[in-house]
Amino acid sequence: MKSGLSFLVAARRCEIDELDQLGRTSELVGTIGRLVHALQRERGLSNVLLASQGRRFAAQRSVQVGECIRLEHEVRAGFDGLQAEARRLGSGTRLFSRIAWVLPGLDALPVLRRRVGALEIGVADASAAFAKLIAGLLAVVFEAADGATDPEISRLLAAMFNFMQGKEFAGQERACGAAAFAAGVDDGTRQQQWLQLIAAQERCFHVFTEFAGPVLATLWQESQPGEETAELERLRRAAITTAPGEPLDSELSTVWFDCCSLRIDAMKAIEDRLASDLRALCDRKITEARAEADANEALLDQVAGTEGTSAFFDDIAPQPPTVKAYGHQLERSVLDMLQEQSQRLQAMSDELDAVRAGLNERKLVERAKGLLMAHRRMTEEEAHKMLRQTAMNQNRRLVDVAESVLSMADFLPGTS
Amino acid sequence: MKSGLSFLVAARRCEIDELDQLGRTSELVGTIGRLVHALQRERGLSNVLLASQGRRFAAQRSVQVGECIRLEHEVRAGFDGLQAEARRLGSGTRLFSRIAWVLPGLDALPVLRRRVGALEIGVADASAAFAKLIAGLLAVVFEAADGATDPEISRLLAAMFNFMQGKEFAGQERACGAAAFAAGVDDGTRQQQWLQLIAAQERCFHVFTEFAGPVLATLWQESQPGEETAELERLRRAAITTAPGEPLDSELSTVWFDCCSLRIDAMKAIEDRLASDLRALCDRKITEARAEADANEALLDQVAGTEGTSAFFDDIAPQPPTVKAYGHQLERSVLDMLQEQSQRLQAMSDELDAVRAGLNERKLVERAKGLLMAHRRMTEEEAHKMLRQTAMNQNRRLVDVAESVLSMADFLPGTS
Repeated sequence: MKSGLSFLVAARRCEIDELDQLGRTSELVGTIGRLVHALQRERGLSNVLLASQGRRFAAQRSVQVGECIRLEHEVRAGFDGLQAEARRLGSGTRLFSRIAWVLPGLDALPVLRRRVGALEIGVADASAAFAKLIAGLLAVVFEAADGATDPEISRLLAAMFNFMQGKEFAGQERACGAAAFAAGVDDGTRQQQWLQLIAAQERCFHVFTEFAGPVLATLWQESQPGEETAELERLRRAAITTAPGEPLDSELSTVWFDCCSLRIDAMKAIEDRLASDLRALCDRKITEARAEADANEALLDQVAGTEGTSAFFDDIAPQPPTVKAYGHQLERSVLDMLQEQSQRLQAMSDELDAVRAGLNERKLVERAKGLLMAHRRMTEEEAHKMLRQTAMNQNRRLVDVAESVLSMADFLPGTS
Repeated sequence: MKSGLSFLVAARRCEIDELDQLGRTSELVGTIGRLVHALQRERGLSNVLLASQGRRFAAQRSVQVGECIRLEHEVRAGFDGLQAEARRLGSGTRLFSRIAWVLPGLDALPVLRRRVGALEIGVADASAAFAKLIAGLLAVVFEAADGATDPEISRLLAAMFNFMQGKEFAGQERACGAAAFAAGVDDGTRQQQWLQLIAAQERCFHVFTEFAGPVLATLWQESQPGEETAELERLRRAAITTAPGEPLDSELSTVWFDCCSLRIDAMKAIEDRLASDLRALCDRKITEARAEADANEALLDQVAGTEGTSAFFDDIAPQPPTVKAYGHQLERSVLDMLQEQSQRLQAMSDELDAVRAGLNERKLVERAKGLLMAHRRMTEEEAHKMLRQTAMNQNRRLVDVAESVLSMADFLPGTS
């Protein structure tokens, strides 16, 4: 029969396995970040190609497609690696479901690209298709953050997810603005959508700074220099405060696009830094856990030869001093180690709860969408559109609308 | 490169692995329940042996010790099985730490028994020693419930944990009352402790009925017949409302013990039913998940030969009807299956959150204890005693005191 200490060692080994797994997942999150960035660029170039009737960016788009295909292979290899390695992944069921959902999107890319190349699809639809695919990739990152069992790593993954999501909103804003300037006119609906995209970005970056810690938060602030931000805000104001239907300077289309691209590229640098911090953190954690496991195993060897002296009940009914020999001291030090381990796990569990609460906002929106899909027979796309539209119309945050939907669940048709 | 459907299959396999693991853990929880019951009886017999200066129950105790040793072997074998099987257990780190903590307690039992047999230890200390060991075993059950990833199973495990905890409070009440009647007098402190034990039982059984569902709740009510309950309440009232220092009828000691034992044995029947329900539920879940995995794999074989038609973007930019061939239909049914899986996981995750919230009360108490241990350099025993004493003095629930302690964390000495 195995001893308590051997279970302490087993607990440590589980922890190391989990950390190894988290290391691999974090690596994959970095790769997904690079693919998302490349797809965001491909979306931008495709938009301009479509808007210019195939006259502009054809060559750049070809190059970019090549880059996307290369990164797609890396991401797919990462997915396959997870499936091959993980006999049991911490949150395997959910992570694999997210991956299962996004892969048909990657499979569908060649057809989408062919249709873009043949100018068979509109700018808005092409943008929406890329956005759907990117949302699927971000959902994998979200699941990785939500399934992480180490609070520090979970915190950085949550920072990463929020940053990537904020960057995606920035990418959507670039497309939205480019379309408005290129059209030479804006309308009320697009202006509302634009404002929502700005607010959504700000919320994401706010959560990011909360989770990422002061160093990265400062880097993030410094990466957005005053002049560029001023330029961005000036262009935003120009487009959004112009009365719907009034002319916009269509020459500003390129200025806008470049200004946004500069900003998004700066975000990429932060994202890369986040990814490398994440790798370093995983490595450090694994090294620490291994060292502690070694120390436990050494103690295990030492204890193996000694006889138990039932120190367990000492605080209730101490035994006479005669038994307090070497074995007894050793046993006490094992009990102390167990106590310490249990306190550490408690503290970790508390912190994990706190990090997951920070991911809650997204869960509320997902849950409200699920409810609408189930009870109003909507597709995910339609449910999301409905929530967003309601948020726009009522000038409320998406998450607040989601909460209202959930609290009204009993009044929805089809609810039993 | 693997397809989305193969990840769906992988997600199902993870789910089946988790269910298999939960099945084993649930089996172990049943075994722990039997050991706890046997230890509760051994505690009772040991108390009487000690109180009667070795004159009563010596033979019965010997038999009971044999039964405990047999069950202890079963539990240890179950622990070892978990360690051998689980390369990665859902919550392996925490579950193994709990097991590591309780094993030195089982190791220390022979010495405790020798001291009881030699009448070297007082009734109160012997009781407290058994209570500490039982608390350690219940902590393993708690962790199993908290780490479960299937909400229905988690719900039954939570019902089981609360029932076992309630039964343990009933056992402590039996010991407390037996000591009071045997002494022929009661005091204010013991009366307070007694009232706390009654309230704690009621809370546990309340949570149990919430989680166990109507069938078990009815069985539970029926298992406590009116006359016996009336007898119990009469004895409780007699002891607790007698002014401290006034004489108690010491003849009632046996009546009290038998009345409580009848009640606790009836609890055992409910606990056995819970354990067998748990096994049946795990079996059913595993069968269901296997059937669904087979269906997925059959579809996977069917799809393998067909070419992708990028149905993924259909809701955004539908393709011309010419491509809507057989492969396209198949692809849509895969996407529908993914959608359904994702909704199911979401619903499961929501329900798990609800079940875990029900386990929260215990976590608050554990956390408050940890805080006291860290900042006031107390042992776990002392921290628990302090919380319980404060609850008694202020006539508040333990969980409320724990919450106050946590909210005052910043004012505790030694906090940075």
